[in-house]
Amino acid sequence: MSYVRNAWYVAGWSQDLAAGERLAITILGEPIVVWRGEGGQAVALEDRCVHRLAPLSLGRCEGANLRCMYHGLLFAPDGRVVEIPGQDLIPAQARVKSYPLVERHSWLWVWMGAAAAADPALIPPAVGFDDPAYILGKGQLDYAAEARLINDNLLDFSHLSYVHANSFGSSETWARTRPKITPLPRGIRVERWITGEPGMRGHVGQDDPLDRWSTYDFLIPGVLLMTGGNFAEGTAAACGFGPPDMAQAQGGVTFTSQAVTPLDKGSARYFFSWGPHVDHGDAALRDMLMGIADQAFGEDKVMIEAQQRVIAATPDPQVMPTSADKGVILFNRLVEKLARGEAAGAATLAA
Amino acid sequence: MSYVRNAWYVAGWSQDLAAGERLAITILGEPIVVWRGEGGQAVALEDRCVHRLAPLSLGRCEGANLRCMYHGLLFAPDGRVVEIPGQDLIPAQARVKSYPLVERHSWLWVWMGAAAAADPALIPPAVGFDDPAYILGKGQLDYAAEARLINDNLLDFSHLSYVHANSFGSSETWARTRPKITPLPRGIRVERWITGEPGMRGHVGQDDPLDRWSTYDFLIPGVLLMTGGNFAEGTAAACGFGPPDMAQAQGGVTFTSQAVTPLDKGSARYFFSWGPHVDHGDAALRDMLMGIADQAFGEDKVMIEAQQRVIAATPDPQVMPTSADKGVILFNRLVEKLARGEAAGAATLAA
Amino acid sequence: MSYVRNAWYVAGWSQDLAAGERLAITILGEPIVVWRGEGGQAVALEDRCVHRLAPLSLGRCEGANLRCMYHGLLFAPDGRVVEIPGQDLIPAQARVKSYPLVERHSWLWVWMGAAAAADPALIPPAVGFDDPAYILGKGQLDYAAEARLINDNLLDFSHLSYVHANSFGSSETWARTRPKITPLPRGIRVERWITGEPGMRGHVGQDDPLDRWSTYDFLIPGVLLMTGGNFAEGTAAACGFGPPDMAQAQGGVTFTSQAVTPLDKGSARYFFSWGPHVDHGDAALRDMLMGIADQAFGEDKVMIEAQQRVIAATPDPQVMPTSADKGVILFNRLVEKLARGEAAGAATLAA
Repeated sequence: MSYVRNAWYVAGWSQDLAAGERLAITILGEPIVVWRGEGGQAVALEDRCVHRLAPLSLGRCEGANLRCMYHGLLFAPDGRVVEIPGQDLIPAQARVKSYPLVERHSWLWVWMGAAAAADPALIPPAVGFDDPAYILGKGQLDYAAEARLINDNLLDFSHLSYVHANSFGSSETWARTRPKITPLPRGIRVERWITGEPGMRGHVGQDDPLDRWSTYDFLIPGVLLMTGGNFAEGTAAACGFGPPDMAQAQGGVTFTSQAVTPLDKGSARYFFSWGPHVDHGDAALRDMLMGIADQAFGEDKVMIEAQQRVIAATPDPQVMPTSADKGVILFNRLVEKLARGEAAGAATLAA
Repeated sequence: MSYVRNAWYVAGWSQDLAAGERLAITILGEPIVVWRGEGGQAVALEDRCVHRLAPLSLGRCEGANLRCMYHGLLFAPDGRVVEIPGQDLIPAQARVKSYPLVERHSWLWVWMGAAAAADPALIPPAVGFDDPAYILGKGQLDYAAEARLINDNLLDFSHLSYVHANSFGSSETWARTRPKITPLPRGIRVERWITGEPGMRGHVGQDDPLDRWSTYDFLIPGVLLMTGGNFAEGTAAACGFGPPDMAQAQGGVTFTSQAVTPLDKGSARYFFSWGPHVDHGDAALRDMLMGIADQAFGEDKVMIEAQQRVIAATPDPQVMPTSADKGVILFNRLVEKLARGEAAGAATLAA
Repeated sequence: MSYVRNAWYVAGWSQDLAAGERLAITILGEPIVVWRGEGGQAVALEDRCVHRLAPLSLGRCEGANLRCMYHGLLFAPDGRVVEIPGQDLIPAQARVKSYPLVERHSWLWVWMGAAAAADPALIPPAVGFDDPAYILGKGQLDYAAEARLINDNLLDFSHLSYVHANSFGSSETWARTRPKITPLPRGIRVERWITGEPGMRGHVGQDDPLDRWSTYDFLIPGVLLMTGGNFAEGTAAACGFGPPDMAQAQGGVTFTSQAVTPLDKGSARYFFSWGPHVDHGDAALRDMLMGIADQAFGEDKVMIEAQQRVIAATPDPQVMPTSADKGVILFNRLVEKLARGEAAGAATLAA
């Protein structure tokens, strides 16, 4: 199972990392300490002291630097050791790997590939807490499953009819119809109308039949950005089943940003925010939606972790794709292509 | 360590599987979902959806069928996919393995070998709740130990004197004397008299010396069927130490059926029932016996799991058989012979 | 990572093993039962019955012997089977390995090497509860880390300034200065003066600047024996920074014996005692010191177990020694040399 290295991975929420604090995360099997110097700058370093391999995430922020709290080596934000207590000479090899890090849209994004190729323009356009158009809540969940299984889940919403019949209240239509899927340079776009059905749970006061528009981009390395809304019955047909004018939405306009970060073989962290557009809800609706999300993402976790256990116990696991798997196949083919390109040494990543 | 595949393994209790319900069990390393359609028929299928390997045991019974609750594929009792939501064509390879299943003597028996060879006559003659002669209780226990170690334990009752001195109240005679052991076509028979000693715990009011008769068959794949009774002192000698006339028993006639199911390398499930003959006890005595059994089988579990840990930590584990191991050796030789025959492709299983 | 086999390893505290009791411990990956016969003699045997590999540590002491409580084999203190219930002949191979064991300084010492080479003179001169000069408390801690990482920690006290700034209240001087290190035949000696600073935590009423003397031997296989004391400022200089006359100490004279026992790859048990000299404290001070020790050794455990996890997750772990590592390097070089000598079959161990 391949992952793209030349990509921005979410390591955490900006607001969870105060000045002078550290967080430890493993991404693609590499232990990383993300910390914020007292001046406010967030930094990502290899989480492994050059001296005796103690984790720097147990360290202490000192101004702009981070001190290993085992024997006191002091690291600058670029990864170089700048002090060894009781020793004048600092060897040239006394440095740890540093990772490009950008804070944007309320997330800490870490670049896992070649530093020279780290282009912030490749950061997916998530919606953060700084966006005045949405009232967002956030959550995260650790999976005992590899990231790709979570990506697969997010790439095919036919599971809504079965996994989430109770939480989201999704009808069988999600499984019995197929969305429009369009390739993007670094992902896919999934668009669909569900017509003539009541709104889903959380869309208060919309129990009469309506047309529900839903669109999301799923982007390298595993980021879902989704919006949608409820429209008068007949809108879908009037639009030729293409994108509606969002200003015509009668309700139910929300935005969710979701990121799947592969920790290690067999584990992943799932970050998500969700909430209504300011014109379609308030903090109370956001809290109701987050309650539904917690229930729904717990349902995914039960299924995906069970799936992971079956796969792990199967000598030569083979899948049998269905017509619902178009998005899964397109996206995974893109991942394989990019990963192969990286493996071949070809730096094929420009947008 | 070999196991026989052409055999009926206990997957659970019939009464624990209501119509419309499912249970998941791994037998010989193969994940199996056992479920009962709404019509009452119990079915055993490979517990792994053909689509993306989600476990069918998280599925939903619909009439006679079982729906995978990840993306909605519907399976018939024979393992074939009969519906893929939103897709007309069902590929020919869309089916999971089905296992022969028979309900008998209150147990769900699953055949792990070649389906053509699945002969219900090979099901061991356990005593179920439908037998009016006995008042039975039931229990089960999961072991972090391979099934063969539990079989070995049940094949040599010399351990009663040490492991179960407190629970069953077994005297040292169990270890210091040897039973009569007779080979059977698919197992062994173990018979013994313990003479001139008081009855064991649970045999109320039999504290004076008596002759205790005990006989059990231990059958492929790992099923123990045991009865016995207390007789007037001198009965053993009068019978020439052969089987007594059970109608002469003064008390203590009980029956226990026990089944050891290998889950995976290093784990097993142990099913057991026990209780008095209607002429020798009542529900209160059954409850007392089950209390003793829970204590005793907990003692076995402590010892056998500890033994398993020692074996796992030993590079080249070797046993040193004693004269108490005759039953162990005979039975394991039979297992090896049958397993070798299966491996050689020779279907050598007729009764 | 090598360990010396021809050495005495601490298996436990004498006072924790009452007559007729057993304790199970794994040393260098070998399961060992240490037990005390009813006559009071402590014995160490392979913890694995010859019959079916049940652990003898689940057994029962009977006089001078130990009975396996699975099927009743009885073992003499030399490891020979002296009874098999129900069987007259005892095979010659019916014996388990026996380990030389000596009780001294309140510890049970087990020799893991060639029995012929087991020389009690090689037991490190720890201070036990039988020494009237000290008022000692004791503790122990299990590590999910290999013993060598704990040894490394104890061989370099520069970590006191960072790991133990709160518990011991150690100043930065511990990290910024270097002790005098002297090779010993089976270890190293580490001596240092910390001058012109207040006493550390627990040295009551010594808040004014003083000269602190500290000296310890760290001996094969992983035993730390340390003493020290507080002296009038200027004493260090007056002694030419060599060992002081301990009779001149103004306070703070304590003794600690510590032993690191490798259980298995990746786990270790840490035994320790500590307390004041009778002229410098009482039971209340001992209890205060033990409270500080519990806090401090918990700090070590957090750091070392985290270090172990990083090492385990690192494909080819490399350290970068600093000038603080002189003791670590000398001791580990000695371990490697002794271990190589053993591997080469050369019994090079005399003191």
